[in-house]
Order: sequence, then C-alpha cells, then structure tokens
Amino acid sequence: MDLETYLPAIEATLQQAVAPLEDGFTDELHHMMCYHLGWQGDGAGVEARGKRIRPLLVILTAAAAGGEWRTALPAAAAVELVHNFSLIHDDIEDNSPLRRGRATLWKIWGIPQAINAGDAMFTLAHLTVLELEQALPAATVLAAARTLQRACLLLTEGQHLDLAYESRNDLTLDAYWPMVRGKTGALLSACTRLGALVADTPAPVLEAYESFGRDLGLAFQAQDDLLGIWGDAALTGKSAESDLASGKKSLPVLYGLSQEGEFAQRWAQGPIQPEEVTHLAKLLRQAGAYDYTQSRANQLTEQALAELEKAQPHGEAGQALRSLARRLLHRQG
Amino acid sequence: MDLETYLPAIEATLQQAVAPLEDGFTDELHHMMCYHLGWQGDGAGVEARGKRIRPLLVILTAAAAGGEWRTALPAAAAVELVHNFSLIHDDIEDNSPLRRGRATLWKIWGIPQAINAGDAMFTLAHLTVLELEQALPAATVLAAARTLQRACLLLTEGQHLDLAYESRNDLTLDAYWPMVRGKTGALLSACTRLGALVADTPAPVLEAYESFGRDLGLAFQAQDDLLGIWGDAALTGKSAESDLASGKKSLPVLYGLSQEGEFAQRWAQGPIQPEEVTHLAKLLRQAGAYDYTQSRANQLTEQALAELEKAQPHGEAGQALRSLARRLLHRQG
Repeated sequence: MDLETYLPAIEATLQQAVAPLEDGFTDELHHMMCYHLGWQGDGAGVEARGKRIRPLLVILTAAAAGGEWRTALPAAAAVELVHNFSLIHDDIEDNSPLRRGRATLWKIWGIPQAINAGDAMFTLAHLTVLELEQALPAATVLAAARTLQRACLLLTEGQHLDLAYESRNDLTLDAYWPMVRGKTGALLSACTRLGALVADTPAPVLEAYESFGRDLGLAFQAQDDLLGIWGDAALTGKSAESDLASGKKSLPVLYGLSQEGEFAQRWAQGPIQPEEVTHLAKLLRQAGAYDYTQSRANQLTEQALAELEKAQPHGEAGQALRSLARRLLHRQG
Repeated sequence: MDLETYLPAIEATLQQAVAPLEDGFTDELHHMMCYHLGWQGDGAGVEARGKRIRPLLVILTAAAAGGEWRTALPAAAAVELVHNFSLIHDDIEDNSPLRRGRATLWKIWGIPQAINAGDAMFTLAHLTVLELEQALPAATVLAAARTLQRACLLLTEGQHLDLAYESRNDLTLDAYWPMVRGKTGALLSACTRLGALVADTPAPVLEAYESFGRDLGLAFQAQDDLLGIWGDAALTGKSAESDLASGKKSLPVLYGLSQEGEFAQRWAQGPIQPEEVTHLAKLLRQAGAYDYTQSRANQLTEQALAELEKAQPHGEAGQALRSLARRLLHRQG
C-alpha cells in the first residue's frame, strides 16, 4: 500500500486546521505553527515534519475496518496536532534546544510565546476533531472527541510521572508502565480507536483495534528507549544525546538498576558525563538490559499484531498496518 | 437572587471534574489542581477560589433563558477550568509569583510541572463540557464543545498579542481591542452562549446573549485596566503591582501614549520604577486616560445591558444577570 496516497491529504488537512490563525493579527502565531509542523522557516521540509505515524494509523485503521479513509482525515489531523502540541511543551519542560535537527519553538520565540503556541495547537486539535461532523452522526463525533480528550488526559498524567521520576531514586520496573501508558500508549490507542469509530465497527472490533494501538505504543516506546542508549545518535559522536547522559528513567535503566550490579553502583553516584556514556552503555548491556528491553519490545509487538488479527483488518490497509507495526520495531533511529 | 444556591453546586461539579486524576499514580497532579482551585494547601478557602463569575454567568444565562440551571453545570465547570488553565499558564508567561495572595503553581512545583498541570486542567475542561451529553442531544453538546474551543482559540490569540505587545512601542489604541476580545471577551461571550445553548433558545436570542457576554467582558477588562493603575493595590503600598511598573499596554496607557504629552515622554524613556508610579498615574490622569477608560467601560456596560434586554431574560435569574453586570463595573478590586 502506497502511503503517498495519504500523506498529501494529511498535510492539507493540517494546513486547513491551522489556517484560522492567519487573520492579519496573529500571523506570527500561525507562522509558529507552520514552523513547528515543518512547512516554514529554516530547515522546513519532509525531514522536519516527522513521519506522521499517528495520522497514518488513524487512516489505515479506518480503511482496514471498512470505513472511508477520507472521512477519518479530521481525526487524523487532530491526533497529529495533539502529538505536536505535546512536543512543543515537552521541549520547554525538558529544556531541549533541538527537535528534528531544528531549533525548538521556545529557543526562537521564548518560553512564554512557546507555551501559548502549544496551547493554541492543542485547541486547534480539539476543534479539528469536531470537523468529523461533516460526515458522521453527532453521537459518533462526541465519542471521537471524548476518545481524543481522554488520551490527552493520560498524556498529561504520563508527562507528570516522567517529570516526577527525574528526581526519584527509589523507582522499580513497575513504575515504568503507568508512565509510558500515558506518554505513548494513550495517543496511539486513541489513533486506532478513532479509525475504528469512523468505520463504525462493532464494540469487540473497536476494542481489538484500540488494544492493538496501545500495545504498539508500548512496543514503540520500549524500542525508543533502546535507541536512546544503543542507537547510532546515542553512541556515536553525539553522546550528549544519550538517555544515559540526560538521566532519563527509561526501561533499560530501570531494569539495570533492578540488577544492582556495576551499572547501578555508578548510577547511584550521580549524573553520567558524556565521555562515560559508551562505557555505561556496555555495563548496562552486560546487566542484561538490552536483551530484556528488546524482548519486551518484541513481545509487545507480537501482542499488538495478535490484537490486530482479532480485528480482522481488511485488504491493503490491513496489510499496511501489519507492516507499519513491524517497521516501527525494526527502525534504527 | 441568592448566588449561594449555585456556588456549592459549581464547586461540587469542579471537584468531580478533577477527580479522575486521583488514581494513586497522579495524586500529586490532582493536588496541584486542588491547590490552584483553592481547595487545598496553604491559604485554601473562599478567597483563594476567585469569584466564579464565569460559571455563574453560564448558569444564570441558562436559567434566564428558560433552561434548567442544573443542566448547565458541566458547561459552567468547563469554562471555570478553562479560565484557571489560562491563569496557570499566564502566571508562568508573566513570571508572576503570586495569584490571589498565594504562591503560583510554578513557584511551588517548578515551570515544567506547572505547564503540564495547566495542560491537564485544559483537557479536563474539554472532557467536562462533554458531560452535557447526560441531559442534552448530541448535536447541542457538539455546539457547546465548539463554542468552548473557539473561545480557547481566541484566548490564545489574545495572549499571543498581549505577549507580543510587551516589546512593541508603535502601538495605537486600535491594537487594544483585538487583544482583549481574545483575552477577556471570548470566554465571557462563550459563557452566555453556552447558557443559551443549554436553554435551547432561538438564534436571535442566542446571539443577543452572546453579545451581552462579549461586551460585558470588554467592559470588565477596561475596568480591570483602570484598577491596575488607579486601584487601591496599584496606588497604595504595592506600587510594584501597578500595571505602570509592569509596562502593560493597557487601555489607559495606550490612550495616554496617543496624547503625546508628559506621560508619553516619560514612557518613551524606559521602564517605570515603583517609586514613580504615583506620579505617573497622576500624569496619566491629567492626559485624560482615566476619564476616557471609565467612559469606555460605562459605554460597554450599557451596550451589554442593552443586548441583555434584547434577549428578554426571565425572572430572578435575569435580574441577577443585570445586577452582576453592574457589580462588575463598580467593583473596587
């Protein structure tokens, strides 16, 4: 299935979604949205846009569940706007100067304007999902809006835990899942649920798609955590980008700490310096954290694919969902 | 009309709205909501809650338009949550350490957790308005959700302008209205529109209530600007709280600058020090800014009341709306 069919329609819907801000008074705010979404400013282009995985998931699920993919476009754009709103605020909260190789909004416009721009994008997301009303009954649109907003609430809960974990040294592996269920699982399960809602599937199918999205999100995060320590950017040249240097309580780190070996001893002594990163990554692998994380990611992906089969996805879109799931697990960066 | 009938119901609905966060994992985030809303922590109590003007407007409008006030409670709580979300983020953006005499969220929990807590409250607002579905048809609930979200978009537009104006010295009086239409007019007009939607009024009545709310919001802001310079807190003892010291481009200041007299000359020379505030306030009054602002506030209030009469509000609730409007204009702090 050629994703090139969908991507231009997603971009067009996103552009429509932010258009109300271009009104003569708030053109700068509109430009901030367009910069962050990768359409304007230094470094604009396909690379700056991210992979649009979430809107693709919405659209592919709608099609695989027997719906009309174009009907799902407002929901697809809405989840991408929610995702990007959360990136804008996360970049402030994590003090990150770069996102996809470009200066973050707060680095260019300052923290106050960037917080507000995130709020504007969040609102546009909620307005956009209501556009489903053009093609669907009001009750379905309400269910979609509620789905998106519940995911947003979980997102803020996950982010709260992530921030709170930074200063905690008493965490066990159990602390990981509530955090990533919010940070990554919630929005991905909203994607597949939204697609299924648009296609008006019966409840068991809806739930299977939703579980598929959730488990895919958890697998995605475990894989992301792996790349954050043993990926190319983390190990070669840019050691400062390693999750070990930032002190992030990721799955491999929490596993490593639970093993109480050499890695845990060093971690207890305070922040990891960039020059130690390669060595620490090795110690962590010796503690079994790489294998553990990889096996959890594999297991969650298989679980996700099993849920997907329960939903009996149709045709080419179903095939595309299967390959998207495998591709997310085997990505290198 | 005794507002004491409504206030406990509003508080109860707000408490229900934030309850989903109290789940064992995110109790601290729940506590942040309860602190900001004035129920928990140092200084908790009626004073810390603000006046709940916006939810009262929703409820009184619903009742005055012939609806059942209890049906409007989810909408009333939702606007109060939106208002408080915007205060949490504004306090960060304006670097304000105090709100209603208490430490602001970011002062206690730090900027990252406070940004995220604002996002959580924003989401809870959108979830809460959907609770209208318990008593109203889905199409009405969608109209209500859209009303709230459009107001939020205008709110972020107004805040964008307010922040952008800080560093601009080329502003005329015309620049003021687009900013306050967003910052204050949008949410107040959403309040009265929501009340009218709940009561299922015909379109002309709905529009009259909406205009009433908008003009009331603009009058409220003009009056607020007046108090920000000539109010007790601004003039006596706490000169640092004067809008003159913070450099805010409020209506009296923009009017004063347009007169190109002594006030404008001093303003052009850079930030006003707290010890100059009393003198500058006097110069500004001599330039006619006090009279101008007061007359605009009066005029907008009369306009608001005229719109209200067009809507033909019923009974005691209608009377309460009239007196609320007059009370907002004649408040001293």
